[in-house]
Parts: sequence; C-alpha cells; structure tokens
Amino acid sequence: MSPRSGRRPSGADTRQLILDQASTAFSERGYDSTSLREIARLARVDPALVTHYFGSKGRLFAALMRLPDNLSAQVALLASGPAVDRGDRLVRFFLTLWEDDVTRQSLLAMFRSAVSNPQAADSLRGFISDALLGPLAAALDLPDPRLRAALAGSQLVGVAMVRYIVGVEPLASADSETVVAWIAPTLQRYLSA
Amino acid sequence: MSPRSGRRPSGADTRQLILDQASTAFSERGYDSTSLREIARLARVDPALVTHYFGSKGRLFAALMRLPDNLSAQVALLASGPAVDRGDRLVRFFLTLWEDDVTRQSLLAMFRSAVSNPQAADSLRGFISDALLGPLAAALDLPDPRLRAALAGSQLVGVAMVRYIVGVEPLASADSETVVAWIAPTLQRYLSA
Repeated sequence: MSPRSGRRPSGADTRQLILDQASTAFSERGYDSTSLREIARLARVDPALVTHYFGSKGRLFAALMRLPDNLSAQVALLASGPAVDRGDRLVRFFLTLWEDDVTRQSLLAMFRSAVSNPQAADSLRGFISDALLGPLAAALDLPDPRLRAALAGSQLVGVAMVRYIVGVEPLASADSETVVAWIAPTLQRYLSA
Repeated sequence: MSPRSGRRPSGADTRQLILDQASTAFSERGYDSTSLREIARLARVDPALVTHYFGSKGRLFAALMRLPDNLSAQVALLASGPAVDRGDRLVRFFLTLWEDDVTRQSLLAMFRSAVSNPQAADSLRGFISDALLGPLAAALDLPDPRLRAALAGSQLVGVAMVRYIVGVEPLASADSETVVAWIAPTLQRYLSA
C-alpha cells in the first residue's frame, strides 16, 4: 500500500508493526488470552522476531505502556534479595519509578485507562499478575504467596493514588525517607512470615 | 423561563439548584476555595437554606458524588471508638461501602474523574482531607495525625484499586474476613503509637 511496498520493512517498522498489532490484540482479547504467537500472526512476522524484539509478553506490554523495559526483571531481582529488607527495597524502587517524570506520565496514563475502560483494566490486571506480582510471589517461600504479593501491590498502588495522583497532604509532600519508613514495614509484614 | 416562573420553587427544585451551582463552583475553583456562602450566592438562595439542606460542605460534596450522606460522621464515629480495634472497624466499614452496588458505582465514578481530570482530583483531594481524613486525624491522640490518616487512606484506596477496580486475584475474590485480617493490622499500625 505504501510507495515502498515490496521493500523489506526496516527493524523500526517491524517493531512498530508488532506493537500496533499487540495493542489491538490486548485491547480486544485481554492480556491473558493474547499470546506472542498470536501477535506474530496478526503482524505477519515470524514469532521468533517478536521474541527477538520484546523477549516476553510482559516486556511487550511494558513497551506499549512506555514503562521501563526491564520492570519485571527488576521486581524479580528486588524480591529475591535478602528477605529482611525486601519491603524497604520494593518501596524505594516504586518511589523511584513515580519520581521519574517520563515513567510517571506512563503510569498515570495506565491508571487512567484502567479506571475508565474495562478492557484496559483487564489487560492491566493480566500484566500486573503475570509480570509484576508473579515474580514477586515466586520469590516468597511462604503460604499464600500470590495473596501476599497482591496485598503489597495494594499498598503501593494506594501510595501512588494518594501521593502522586490525588495529591493528599501531608503524604503528597512528605520526603521519600518518611514514606519508606512508614510503608516498608507494611510490605515487610505482607511479604514475610 | 419556565411557565411556572414567579412561583416559589419547591424544596426539590431548590435543592437541585444548589447542587448544580455547587458542582460548577467545585469544578471551577476546587473544594477548598468554595464556601457554602459562595454556593448560596451563585444559587441566589439564603445561605441558611444551603445549611438546611446539606449541613456542611463535605455533605454537599458527598451528595453531589452520590455518596452516603453521613460518610464524614461515620468516619468520625468509627475513629473515635476504642483505639485497640480502630483498624478493624475502618476496614470493615470501607469494604461495606465498596460492596454496596450503588455506592460502588459512585466511588468508581469519583475515581475515574479524579485520575482523568485535574480539577476533579483537586476537589476530591479537598473533600478527602476535609471530610474523611480530617475527622480521622482529629480522633488520633498521636504525633503526625494527618500523615497517619493519609497513610491509612492510602492502604484503603489501594485495596479499592486492586480488589474492586482492576480486580487482581486472589485479592479480588478473597473473602472479606481474609481482607480484614490482613489489612486491619496495617491500619492499626498507622493509627496507633
């Protein structure tokens, strides 16, 4: 259709083509029901190419949401460190994400679509479970690891809403160390015995 | 303008007129900068009439948002009871609100507008501080009562996002008693010494 049709698309074009098809697939079928293979089929590329560009469904979704590429791996790494300060590491990492201007805009956009659009909420639910709470739960050698991970997630999401989105004082302008000092023990209780 | 003009408006009309003007005032100026007196002026009614129908700015805002009329008084009552199970009472009350179909729809609409519209976020911030966290903080005989109230609010808002809005499992379908058993100690830590 383009004047260049017949020429092999560049890497950037292919990557964008995969992203476009992934966006459609996630919003029409939800995150859980979409596979990398299905996205490859829609984009008419070899499945190996989707893996080459994005590595995993979680990383493809993160790229679509313009979130840091290695979010899932970072959560896994933070969760698998010494259990005694797991809560502290996770809340510090979470605050760093929200205090980065670019990432904050991406997270805000994700929150907005999740609360206003059931399909977006469905995709976000799949991504959170698969790429964030999954690795966190996998690092916990405790009963109810997924419930514990979801509880930790609830406290972090609540901090995001109150501190960064609605901006309720004095939590909105409390310094990071104060927030860490209050929130880390909550996460620690959810994520340890 | 109506064929009835000249006739004194009924109570229901006056109440709606006040609500309409309040809606405009809150969205244009925000919650904090809007007074009941100003709303009365815009609605061209006696300020005593605004107080007669709504009692306080918090109750007027709650009426606009279709939230339970006595929300603020209920929070004050729950917070002022025995400190030892304050967390337990608050989380049970919060879950009851979200598990009521009508209230849940109102809360969802409020969340939606707060994340997508800065003016709505601004009004919600004012309402939360004035009508919910204010009475909660006032009941705490501890240092940093407002920060503690905001932290408790952050955990509750996070439960709403994860359990009711995004619906992340297993928190979404955990029974209420499980949620209470996990969340009450968090609130208790924030709201006690």
